[in-house]
Amino acid sequence: MAGLVAELRERVYRANRELAESGLVVGTFGNVSEVDRAAGVFVIKPSGVRYEEQTPAHMVPVSLETGKVVDSSLRPSSDTPTHLELYRAFRCGGIVHTHSEVATAFAQARLPVRCMGTTHADHFRGDVPVTRPLTREEVEGEYERNTGLVVVERFESGGISPEEIPAVLVANHGPFTWGKNAHDAVEQASTLEYLARMEATVRAIAPDAPRPDPALVDRHFWRKHGATAYYGQNKK
Amino acid sequence: MAGLVAELRERVYRANRELAESGLVVGTFGNVSEVDRAAGVFVIKPSGVRYEEQTPAHMVPVSLETGKVVDSSLRPSSDTPTHLELYRAFRCGGIVHTHSEVATAFAQARLPVRCMGTTHADHFRGDVPVTRPLTREEVEGEYERNTGLVVVERFESGGISPEEIPAVLVANHGPFTWGKNAHDAVEQASTLEYLARMEATVRAIAPDAPRPDPALVDRHFWRKHGATAYYGQNKK
Amino acid sequence: MAGLVAELRERVYRANRELAESGLVVGTFGNVSEVDRAAGVFVIKPSGVRYEEQTPAHMVPVSLETGKVVDSSLRPSSDTPTHLELYRAFRCGGIVHTHSEVATAFAQARLPVRCMGTTHADHFRGDVPVTRPLTREEVEGEYERNTGLVVVERFESGGISPEEIPAVLVANHGPFTWGKNAHDAVEQASTLEYLARMEATVRAIAPDAPRPDPALVDRHFWRKHGATAYYGQNKK
Amino acid sequence: MAGLVAELRERVYRANRELAESGLVVGTFGNVSEVDRAAGVFVIKPSGVRYEEQTPAHMVPVSLETGKVVDSSLRPSSDTPTHLELYRAFRCGGIVHTHSEVATAFAQARLPVRCMGTTHADHFRGDVPVTRPLTREEVEGEYERNTGLVVVERFESGGISPEEIPAVLVANHGPFTWGKNAHDAVEQASTLEYLARMEATVRAIAPDAPRPDPALVDRHFWRKHGATAYYGQNKK
Repeated sequence: MAGLVAELRERVYRANRELAESGLVVGTFGNVSEVDRAAGVFVIKPSGVRYEEQTPAHMVPVSLETGKVVDSSLRPSSDTPTHLELYRAFRCGGIVHTHSEVATAFAQARLPVRCMGTTHADHFRGDVPVTRPLTREEVEGEYERNTGLVVVERFESGGISPEEIPAVLVANHGPFTWGKNAHDAVEQASTLEYLARMEATVRAIAPDAPRPDPALVDRHFWRKHGATAYYGQNKK
Repeated sequence: MAGLVAELRERVYRANRELAESGLVVGTFGNVSEVDRAAGVFVIKPSGVRYEEQTPAHMVPVSLETGKVVDSSLRPSSDTPTHLELYRAFRCGGIVHTHSEVATAFAQARLPVRCMGTTHADHFRGDVPVTRPLTREEVEGEYERNTGLVVVERFESGGISPEEIPAVLVANHGPFTWGKNAHDAVEQASTLEYLARMEATVRAIAPDAPRPDPALVDRHFWRKHGATAYYGQNKK
Repeated sequence: MAGLVAELRERVYRANRELAESGLVVGTFGNVSEVDRAAGVFVIKPSGVRYEEQTPAHMVPVSLETGKVVDSSLRPSSDTPTHLELYRAFRCGGIVHTHSEVATAFAQARLPVRCMGTTHADHFRGDVPVTRPLTREEVEGEYERNTGLVVVERFESGGISPEEIPAVLVANHGPFTWGKNAHDAVEQASTLEYLARMEATVRAIAPDAPRPDPALVDRHFWRKHGATAYYGQNKK
Repeated sequence: MAGLVAELRERVYRANRELAESGLVVGTFGNVSEVDRAAGVFVIKPSGVRYEEQTPAHMVPVSLETGKVVDSSLRPSSDTPTHLELYRAFRCGGIVHTHSEVATAFAQARLPVRCMGTTHADHFRGDVPVTRPLTREEVEGEYERNTGLVVVERFESGGISPEEIPAVLVANHGPFTWGKNAHDAVEQASTLEYLARMEATVRAIAPDAPRPDPALVDRHFWRKHGATAYYGQNKK
């Protein structure tokens, strides 16, 4: 298992660097994790260590079962309990949290990033939803865990598939995205920011713009995802 | 003909790199093609291959007559049937499709990029139009081909000259531009994005701004284009 | 005089490079000139030559008296007659024309860049005005010359000092700025774009924001300009 | 004391470079200072010297008691009296003034940068306030000193803690930020600009967006600041 975790640390370290270089985070903000479900651990970046000082050894393994740190004297990202709840509820391999500028503005405005066209539909099969605000009790209690639970609640109550829409905006907080692995989740975070920028322009220039036909959304989503995909070279 | 196609592959490869470096595309999105009408083929980038992995040999020749791949085992861009219809209907040498941020937002808002001044008129003799949305039947049928047909319909029904306005926004999708060759079409895509950014600001700060006199538009368009041009060094 | 003009060509060449590197122009757009009033000539960039191909020898001298090219076989910028009228009416040493993104959007919206704070007042003692649109006759006649005349008219009819406000927006066209020399005019163009960006945000977030006290505008303008300036090291 | 001041000059020089590289200032605008309260001096950048020409020796020491220059023949930043009043009233180690684009637009709009989410609350425990405009008498009198006094008045009359909200917008002028030292104040200036950009988007897309629960603001502020902080590695 030590070898597995070493590899996971390396992968999470590299994905954190990708995130730092993407311009989606400021200062020590933002965090990336990746899970090894067979080993029962996920690895996440440490709390408050600047990206330029991080090495793979700084990455902190956390038990999926207990939520406790395994084999590290560092404190993991303060958002670790959020990642834990998402790994428990969603079938995903990597998770990213950012404060990227425009997606966070949507979270602050409590507005979804609507699916208004094919660029969005190529990645997400519908609106990227926004959670309800946490109650005062949830904020003052196990805040970071409750953040994860309110995300899960949003997907379950809304009948939203976390595989088809691997992204969410936590109200007055910011975006979380997930994917097959840490690298994939970073790409989703980057795409979400791009879509949010376009959607901010749409809202500014045409507040009443009509929605695209759901058939168009499905056409684009399924030409890139799933068994019927016909985009790219490997799915012929 | 092999030599001609090799040169065309090289030119399309270079134009795809220009596009990648322009910031107008994200990930593997966007595609460039160029036609050799005498040889009856156009060359287009392959589907889903990252820009940094592409070489000239990856570029895929397609027959203008049959729409089938010629001399390549790679799958061409999924938007190939759109390019095909545009080459058949319009007298142009190169075509570019992007998801550039602000032009795509206009497509999502179903608003034209209006000609509000001389920067626009230097390039396009009037508004860059937006197509009608595709019907559900068009989406669920030969979607990519229908995308090309709806562009052609927009120009024909609107009496718009594709030489004077070599750009269009496909509703809820994004921009296509064309030009003398692939390189020229990339420049048009870049110009369109710039004009869309300006137009978004105009709409935000002055929704009721009056249009420029059509005489001003013509003055600028014709001082750069056609027999009466007096801009540049070669047309004295 | 040959030596003088050679030096002027070198200076205009360098200012054109500064402009190209500033991000204020796209393609071959934009032009810079500088005048030598004693020699009776100004030097301006050639029409339609890409910035990366220009050398000092490409810069075109033009007579202040006749408006004709002196000692060059190249065609000067098509906006040369505009520069000529501005040099004749205004006491300035260099002129710049750009299509910089946000200042041009204000020109297209026919809105001034208002003086809303001290950043603006440090450079311009009041709003940067917008001209009236040219009449159809003016457009179809000596268009570029009339562009210069309509700028001069705006300053004279408005009682605006071209030394205190060395910038203008030509309606549905774009900005012209001027200064002590070509380099200085490029800096003004860059400052104007920055101020236009701020003003676009002000209009978006607070359309009814009150104006600053004119005393504040004067305090900032005069602490940097004129006999009472107390900013910088050379005016103690 | 000479050694202390030399070190302070070096630190202020470096923080000025950080500011110049941050993109928050244009031309010679903006200034950074740091205080040594035991020595009774603060060091500030000189007036009107371009960032690329500055060396540590250019930095100007000023007496906290008299406000006069100590041991330098250069004129300090024209905003020095503002820094002096802030050092006298607030318990801080470094001060920064910028004309950063969007924060300055808020100052020009006379709007606070509201605390709309956790990114803001991680840094500032509430809205970044805007001062009242200076009266004509204040502008025409000791203008720069009065700028400092109106900031102090805003915090005192509003019951705002300068430790919990180390930033302000001076009406129709721009932002000032402060921190433990000069470097820290530069980071606050950078954060404020980022928050202002997000807030401009929120105002554009959702003018009536509800405020976050104050409990959420406090949760985030106190998990990073003060005795109960649990973010980072040093506060376990």
